[in-house]
Amino acid sequence: MSRNIAIAGVTGVVGQEFLRLIEERNFKFDSLKMLASSRSAGKKIAFMGEEYTIEELTENSFKGVDVALFSAGGSQSKKFADAVVQSGAVMIDNSSAFRMDPAAPLVVPEVNPEAIKANKGIIANPNCSTIIALVPVWPLHKQNSVKRMVISTYQAASGAGIAAMNELKKQSADILEGREPVCEALPYQAAFNVFCHDSKIGENGYNEEEMKMVNETRKIFDDSQIAITCTCVRVPVMRAHSESINLEFEKPADPAWVREVLEDSPGVIVIDDRDKNRFPMPAIDADGKDDIYVGRIRQDESIPDGRGINLWVCGDQIRKGAALNAVQIAEAMDF
Amino acid sequence: MSRNIAIAGVTGVVGQEFLRLIEERNFKFDSLKMLASSRSAGKKIAFMGEEYTIEELTENSFKGVDVALFSAGGSQSKKFADAVVQSGAVMIDNSSAFRMDPAAPLVVPEVNPEAIKANKGIIANPNCSTIIALVPVWPLHKQNSVKRMVISTYQAASGAGIAAMNELKKQSADILEGREPVCEALPYQAAFNVFCHDSKIGENGYNEEEMKMVNETRKIFDDSQIAITCTCVRVPVMRAHSESINLEFEKPADPAWVREVLEDSPGVIVIDDRDKNRFPMPAIDADGKDDIYVGRIRQDESIPDGRGINLWVCGDQIRKGAALNAVQIAEAMDF
Repeated sequence: MSRNIAIAGVTGVVGQEFLRLIEERNFKFDSLKMLASSRSAGKKIAFMGEEYTIEELTENSFKGVDVALFSAGGSQSKKFADAVVQSGAVMIDNSSAFRMDPAAPLVVPEVNPEAIKANKGIIANPNCSTIIALVPVWPLHKQNSVKRMVISTYQAASGAGIAAMNELKKQSADILEGREPVCEALPYQAAFNVFCHDSKIGENGYNEEEMKMVNETRKIFDDSQIAITCTCVRVPVMRAHSESINLEFEKPADPAWVREVLEDSPGVIVIDDRDKNRFPMPAIDADGKDDIYVGRIRQDESIPDGRGINLWVCGDQIRKGAALNAVQIAEAMDF
Repeated sequence: MSRNIAIAGVTGVVGQEFLRLIEERNFKFDSLKMLASSRSAGKKIAFMGEEYTIEELTENSFKGVDVALFSAGGSQSKKFADAVVQSGAVMIDNSSAFRMDPAAPLVVPEVNPEAIKANKGIIANPNCSTIIALVPVWPLHKQNSVKRMVISTYQAASGAGIAAMNELKKQSADILEGREPVCEALPYQAAFNVFCHDSKIGENGYNEEEMKMVNETRKIFDDSQIAITCTCVRVPVMRAHSESINLEFEKPADPAWVREVLEDSPGVIVIDDRDKNRFPMPAIDADGKDDIYVGRIRQDESIPDGRGINLWVCGDQIRKGAALNAVQIAEAMDF
């Protein structure tokens, strides 16, 4: 069994995180191809004691490849999907291109690892905000069905790429020094401000990020009935998302039960110290980390019969929200 | 009819805003006393072409005063309430000291101006997040009863005072220049981070800010049954709060109806341009402004029968969230 890996979009934020994760997690591979656009082709990357040359991503890139980790944008994923599959490789795609394709499993390994086997050559990696919410909600849902979720997000700049992260820093410095902030990577001032997620607004008034959370959750949970509403918002944080999650369960749900389940769940760390007012924080706890941090576990008395729970979760957008989840999918594959 | 005004806590963020509002709104007064702690007593403040000397706030400060605007902290409000009332003045108190006192009306002039007349010497000004939510929710609630609200806040540093605002700037500069941020005014890193509101956590796991929103809304709406749950969060924004508000109405509620009502409501400005993804932003729209900005008006399909609506609101914490609301109460009084 060979393990020949390709990374498409290796120069991006997520592509770079793929490399860090492969090294950190001691992910075994026989060969590694670094692929990017023609702009980056020929550049060298030092990785684990070897020098790699970036190759241009083309239809001929996948000969002999077993798994191709894609994070080069949805249009590139669509363009090269056939070439990947025809080469006999499996694409693990970080873009939204195939997430709602019935033929492509949409996988969070803590939730639906069994879906991986059913792949026909493409496995989709969910949206970051979806993954970060579902890792802690799933173990609760398994024991006591979640009927409705109301989610408001506090999303980091990293979701819009490295340029947005740099813009947040630049704008912050500009404002502190009395200069007018310039908006290029993000549509509105990111520093010391908050705005509606910068994805297209649909006819129903929801941005694409919000609809991804609704539709992807239903697919991953294999539950077309679960009621979900979201408000997705960017905040001036560098790379970890936070989410305020209100849950309505089918049966009564006690905060002590929630805590017990979450403390025992893979990929989840509970921080919930009421005396110290110490709960998960994106920059302090989640930044650069693998786990999803959960706290503010409270009974929501506005839902009758003790069926309401409020949660607060933080997770690194680049790691579990993107690169880590994809690498975990690759780790769970038989190859 | 005389209009002799005192401002207690004139050197604070809200106290200073009282002065700006009195000038801007051409609030008529016969005399103005500037009161603060002994530390500031004797200092001079130039205001509307006159020089005022700050006096120490004592029990003897209120002789001949008609209205005392208090923003000197809850303990000072409690300490001097009797002195104010016995002097025949009315205290308009920005602290939480008397908000839940059945003898003290709790007033948002756009919601319950009639409560002002029933005062027995103390009128309480609600919590900032409560005011900012209720100005737009009330006109909807009047026409179609709100049964339940789920609110997540994005609160500015200003709610924790001028020291917190300066700390947010200082920490931002420190982080940008690679220095370790120092936390003094706020318990945790405010810059490029998000954390649970820095008020005491009660036995039910809710912070005081969250319980204020629940209890104050019930009192202001005179509706002990309205179901409310909140998650209150600080974000790195200077002085305007944002809130994600999910509403469950008694009867079907159409987004077009919501927009129509809000466009016609006092103190509310609708910004809801789906094509441009242009909705209210705290730093761009609300900062330093009087109105509450509302957008992201959407049907929440997770509530059956079209009875669900999502809103996004932004309001200046120091103006409508504190000083302006208090000055509007004074304007509405017969004196």
